Amino acid sequence: MSSPHISELTWPVYDAKVKDGKTIVMIPVGALEQHGHHMSLNTDVLLPTAIAERVAKRIDALVAPPIAYGYKSQQKCGGGNHMPGTTSLDGHTLTCTIRDILKELARHGVRRTVLVNGHYENSMFIVEGVDLAQRELRWEGIHDFATVVLSYWDFVTPEAIEKIYQDEFPGWAVEHGGVLETSLMLHLHPNLVDIDQVVDHPPATFPPYDFFPVKPEWTPASGCLSSAKKASAAHGELLLKVCVDGISDALAKAFES
Amino acid sequence: MSSPHISELTWPVYDAKVKDGKTIVMIPVGALEQHGHHMSLNTDVLLPTAIAERVAKRIDALVAPPIAYGYKSQQKCGGGNHMPGTTSLDGHTLTCTIRDILKELARHGVRRTVLVNGHYENSMFIVEGVDLAQRELRWEGIHDFATVVLSYWDFVTPEAIEKIYQDEFPGWAVEHGGVLETSLMLHLHPNLVDIDQVVDHPPATFPPYDFFPVKPEWTPASGCLSSAKKASAAHGELLLKVCVDGISDALAKAFES
Amino acid sequence: MSSPHISELTWPVYDAKVKDGKTIVMIPVGALEQHGHHMSLNTDVLLPTAIAERVAKRIDALVAPPIAYGYKSQQKCGGGNHMPGTTSLDGHTLTCTIRDILKELARHGVRRTVLVNGHYENSMFIVEGVDLAQRELRWEGIHDFATVVLSYWDFVTPEAIEKIYQDEFPGWAVEHGGVLETSLMLHLHPNLVDIDQVVDHPPATFPPYDFFPVKPEWTPASGCLSSAKKASAAHGELLLKVCVDGISDALAKAFES
Amino acid sequence: MSSPHISELTWPVYDAKVKDGKTIVMIPVGALEQHGHHMSLNTDVLLPTAIAERVAKRIDALVAPPIAYGYKSQQKCGGGNHMPGTTSLDGHTLTCTIRDILKELARHGVRRTVLVNGHYENSMFIVEGVDLAQRELRWEGIHDFATVVLSYWDFVTPEAIEKIYQDEFPGWAVEHGGVLETSLMLHLHPNLVDIDQVVDHPPATFPPYDFFPVKPEWTPASGCLSSAKKASAAHGELLLKVCVDGISDALAKAFES
Amino acid sequence: MSSPHISELTWPVYDAKVKDGKTIVMIPVGALEQHGHHMSLNTDVLLPTAIAERVAKRIDALVAPPIAYGYKSQQKCGGGNHMPGTTSLDGHTLTCTIRDILKELARHGVRRTVLVNGHYENSMFIVEGVDLAQRELRWEGIHDFATVVLSYWDFVTPEAIEKIYQDEFPGWAVEHGGVLETSLMLHLHPNLVDIDQVVDHPPATFPPYDFFPVKPEWTPASGCLSSAKKASAAHGELLLKVCVDGISDALAKAFES
Amino acid sequence: MSSPHISELTWPVYDAKVKDGKTIVMIPVGALEQHGHHMSLNTDVLLPTAIAERVAKRIDALVAPPIAYGYKSQQKCGGGNHMPGTTSLDGHTLTCTIRDILKELARHGVRRTVLVNGHYENSMFIVEGVDLAQRELRWEGIHDFATVVLSYWDFVTPEAIEKIYQDEFPGWAVEHGGVLETSLMLHLHPNLVDIDQVVDHPPATFPPYDFFPVKPEWTPASGCLSSAKKASAAHGELLLKVCVDGISDALAKAFES
Repeated sequence: MSSPHISELTWPVYDAKVKDGKTIVMIPVGALEQHGHHMSLNTDVLLPTAIAERVAKRIDALVAPPIAYGYKSQQKCGGGNHMPGTTSLDGHTLTCTIRDILKELARHGVRRTVLVNGHYENSMFIVEGVDLAQRELRWEGIHDFATVVLSYWDFVTPEAIEKIYQDEFPGWAVEHGGVLETSLMLHLHPNLVDIDQVVDHPPATFPPYDFFPVKPEWTPASGCLSSAKKASAAHGELLLKVCVDGISDALAKAFES
Repeated sequence: MSSPHISELTWPVYDAKVKDGKTIVMIPVGALEQHGHHMSLNTDVLLPTAIAERVAKRIDALVAPPIAYGYKSQQKCGGGNHMPGTTSLDGHTLTCTIRDILKELARHGVRRTVLVNGHYENSMFIVEGVDLAQRELRWEGIHDFATVVLSYWDFVTPEAIEKIYQDEFPGWAVEHGGVLETSLMLHLHPNLVDIDQVVDHPPATFPPYDFFPVKPEWTPASGCLSSAKKASAAHGELLLKVCVDGISDALAKAFES
Repeated sequence: MSSPHISELTWPVYDAKVKDGKTIVMIPVGALEQHGHHMSLNTDVLLPTAIAERVAKRIDALVAPPIAYGYKSQQKCGGGNHMPGTTSLDGHTLTCTIRDILKELARHGVRRTVLVNGHYENSMFIVEGVDLAQRELRWEGIHDFATVVLSYWDFVTPEAIEKIYQDEFPGWAVEHGGVLETSLMLHLHPNLVDIDQVVDHPPATFPPYDFFPVKPEWTPASGCLSSAKKASAAHGELLLKVCVDGISDALAKAFES
Repeated sequence: MSSPHISELTWPVYDAKVKDGKTIVMIPVGALEQHGHHMSLNTDVLLPTAIAERVAKRIDALVAPPIAYGYKSQQKCGGGNHMPGTTSLDGHTLTCTIRDILKELARHGVRRTVLVNGHYENSMFIVEGVDLAQRELRWEGIHDFATVVLSYWDFVTPEAIEKIYQDEFPGWAVEHGGVLETSLMLHLHPNLVDIDQVVDHPPATFPPYDFFPVKPEWTPASGCLSSAKKASAAHGELLLKVCVDGISDALAKAFES
Repeated sequence: MSSPHISELTWPVYDAKVKDGKTIVMIPVGALEQHGHHMSLNTDVLLPTAIAERVAKRIDALVAPPIAYGYKSQQKCGGGNHMPGTTSLDGHTLTCTIRDILKELARHGVRRTVLVNGHYENSMFIVEGVDLAQRELRWEGIHDFATVVLSYWDFVTPEAIEKIYQDEFPGWAVEHGGVLETSLMLHLHPNLVDIDQVVDHPPATFPPYDFFPVKPEWTPASGCLSSAKKASAAHGELLLKVCVDGISDALAKAFES
Repeated sequence: MSSPHISELTWPVYDAKVKDGKTIVMIPVGALEQHGHHMSLNTDVLLPTAIAERVAKRIDALVAPPIAYGYKSQQKCGGGNHMPGTTSLDGHTLTCTIRDILKELARHGVRRTVLVNGHYENSMFIVEGVDLAQRELRWEGIHDFATVVLSYWDFVTPEAIEKIYQDEFPGWAVEHGGVLETSLMLHLHPNLVDIDQVVDHPPATFPPYDFFPVKPEWTPASGCLSSAKKASAAHGELLLKVCVDGISDALAKAFES
């Protein structure tokens, strides 16, 4: 058995791979979140997992099982946590999950870890989980445990943006269920996209503040914040390539000794 | 898109399916845990997920994304949490995860839920998560939210045990990495089992107490607590059948109005 | 003042006894839980305390004050937490209690500890408390703090079961308020048993899953899960003897250097 | 079986007694704490329990099992938590214990509860536990659940103080292991006091602040903060009487409708 | 006594003002965080407080005492939490603080609340605090409690940015200790800025990921992420005006009935 | 910039001041709590802050930003937490706040800290926060971090009490909104006191127990527990002087090496 996925290894194989601390372990962090009428609820899990898998193959790293439930969807970047299907954790639950997993990896000997985030709202709770884990690892006497936290879309290059969106890039915030995610899904999991169901509407606009409880009327009826009309598998292939390239290079650099 | 997996649905499809509260939602709860030299670390996730998927198809239920990390492996039923690869959560983290997910399902309208456990050590932390969720749901004014908690091996019939083990059934406690799990994996995921790597040894025996920190010498070197030598895909097929049959019947009965 | 009970010692006597770390300290963990029409609510506290006291005298150990409130009663082994009188803690509360007490014992110099459980539902929350305590003790630089976790009924020998139940042993799960507990109480605390109030009924049977909220009709009206009709003080004396013998021997072995 | 102690009742007897909500339930809250060379570690549990028992008999109330471990001993009123034998809980653990027990009593129908404190340091964590319980009970729709929080020494009358101490009353703060507690123990549990071991020294004096970590030299070597030299069983009898009288009267008044 | 600051009112004045639920209450949320060699550690508290105060006067709202300690400084937007002076809370502590305060305001009758954030890293922990508060308030039966969460810099208009930065706006992320904050402080609290101590350097650039533990060399030695060289009190006056205008208008709109 | 207030320093100035661990850092801990018809809600913050500032100047210490929200007001010493304006934290929230801040100060190099309490109800939650911080600091390898916990009124001398109250000192417990606090405010912040609004009534008297939920009729309608009629700025000046003198002397002694 050989696989970039830890879950598919036996323990002796895993052990041999990680015990000297050099192998990078990547943990995709996603969400179960509505992504419009045209795309499945697991989009935010599948995308960082696919990217992590490809990066892992390239740099001989490993991928831990993805975290399938994320922090509460926010209206201005995910449509809001009032939507059907969106199934979220309290912030502290997510933070503790990250903390616990990192500490266990450290027990195995792992010293280089990467959180590959696929759901914007997770970011700060991941950061806190990393901080709590590293704090407790110091208490265990482990001082060389390092963690990269990244969101894959931050590796999309300006050239790729220009190519895909021309001058109409609406910003990542409203890319929820839009061209980026849909293109990647069309390339990676076309069976989970029904492009005919895309609702075409201009990018959602919001006031410069959040309101709680959400005003449902702020979210387009589709649940998406911008239209995926221009999504294509070809765009997805390009996006995947730039993310995998960018992250692979970044990790090589981040963990170089 | 049609699938028993919530993760593969769009939100309008999911919403239509669950909003009247009648559809059962099943949540597999597993672990990332060593299962010997011959089987992958995700065994405790794949098995309850496979069973839940088949039950869901039979009774028109849905399966939520499995919980991929479980409670700490105990030496007398899982080899112990000192083993490489085993990657576990604190009890409270698991409990809060269960609590949060159940509450979100309730928000969607779901009223009938099933935790399908694949890792013995999870049991009580699942129970506590259910209790906390139902308590908070009462506070939300929701009083008809019901949950079944089950471990799939409890549905293996005496006849199946007799057929598979003849007189040598060692008890579920030491079935960790043994005939039950290996046979199911051989039937369901043969690529994740290397039967040649099975280490043949008599079932582990333990004193009638637990000791912490673990005495590593109590655990067989393989990490398994009994031998999978007699495992076979045919046994796996039978085990799957009795579990799927038994759970399907049980749920029909549990939730009948 | 000399006593196996820490609570009845002065601090200098206690200090002299424990500061070199050799003396075993046993902590009974019980519950305030209904035990039928015929037996008092403190059964799960009194029994492990009585056993611990006798073991302590035999092996020159000490007994800490019992934990009088336990985890929520489960329907299939305790009748359910909906019953009057049953007064339970959240799992995390019990876990933190165990954690805190163990850490304080460690501060006193104690290095050998035993949780003597008298209420099945406590088990995993005790285990988690032990794990959290040992983790924090490592952070304090204490690496030789050991803990045995046991439930006293696991020390009842097959011979004793045969003698008491002949061929009718229903299994520990439904022994709640049954022959085991009632016999021990008749021997140890006859004033807290009114044998005339025993409701005779066959052992409760349950489906192979748990249901929440409980279905009250699953629990026999008595609150007991099997009949204590055949209980006797003589049986209790035997049960006490085998438990005290078994635990004394086990601890000697567990902590031998 | 008839007893003021809930622990000694069967559930039907308890249920009949509490379900209409009129019966007062008292919970003694103590500590396992050093009380000098002359007195046992359970002093703070035994005293409020004895008082609660007598009050319960007088006003037909019930006594729940005492909480045997309390909050960390403070140097200026308990000698400090660095002392051997003193075995304390984190504040939040104690708070959650109080919260959980009160909520369970409420589930049984109890509406009038009393925390009878025997360890000064517990006070605010009890108060917080009561507040959290009443908050959650409101969420359950229970609005008539009332709780008295008291420390028994606050019911010692000026006349009794004058009689026992003449002009030498040092204040309750330094009464730790002093005349009050020792006299009560001599009257109630003479076997747990060795009056010959009393170390006679003037009341401890402290600066008007606390210092952490404690300066051990601030605490008299005995662990007591004042001398029990003048303690006597006769004083104890008087103290018991005024406390039982005072608390009985106070509760009648507090809960009068 | 009349003041926009709740802290400076007596309770009857406050009560009269808030009990009908119409008055907006604003809570500034800041941090104690290094802001370079030239500016005081309280910058993130003083700025949202000053803005809130002015908005309150304009729309007849109130300002609650600012939260003076915030979430851990992140390297790419605050220099990192390894810097001297930066004094931060765990995420859960901040979340609970927000939760508790909002619930108390609700008890007073307040129904319209605004979190005015001055420290980027606080954002998601504020959001979670709001969510937890609103959840518990629902359990209390309060369903009309609304909260706006905003960061004041999101109200700086493109015109103001153009005027102040011409074409050199580096983005808010690296504005830490830069022109925005320094100009506002020069206008509002000139005594807390020593413009001569500004270290002039180009805006910090970072890779598209975070690294933990921080690589201190990523943060400019000054602790600032961009130069405040072009800051001026005049700019500050303009920035203050657009923020106060923008927030005042936004709140009027957000809470219009 | 030079100031006793950390908040008003730049980080290099602060760093130079604290990194050798000798400088004392004082943290005022207050509350937002009603103080009658005549005095502002921030009384419990302003008074310890003013005192800390003066002590800091005298002994060359520093003052951290005050904690502006405290633990729930208790009826017998603060009027009760049901009053309008009183805005309180859960005990655990306050404890965690104290813990987090102390740990951050330790990271900066600070080793001598003082919690200057201005709200009686905070005391035990401060103590717990200190204990948790020092525990975690030990785990970080820091063993010389010391903390004084004090309440400023404990430094009022008998002479000052005699001078101000003659024979009518009602005890600190009912001094809430009374002569002590009002006099200090008249001296320090006369604009926040409207002496004409003082309601003159005898000191409140209470039974020797607490009752929850509060009986509102126990609290005088003013919210104060004793009359501030005899308050004066001159008294305030004297009180301030004895507190500043007493605390300055005490700290010099507490931290002398």
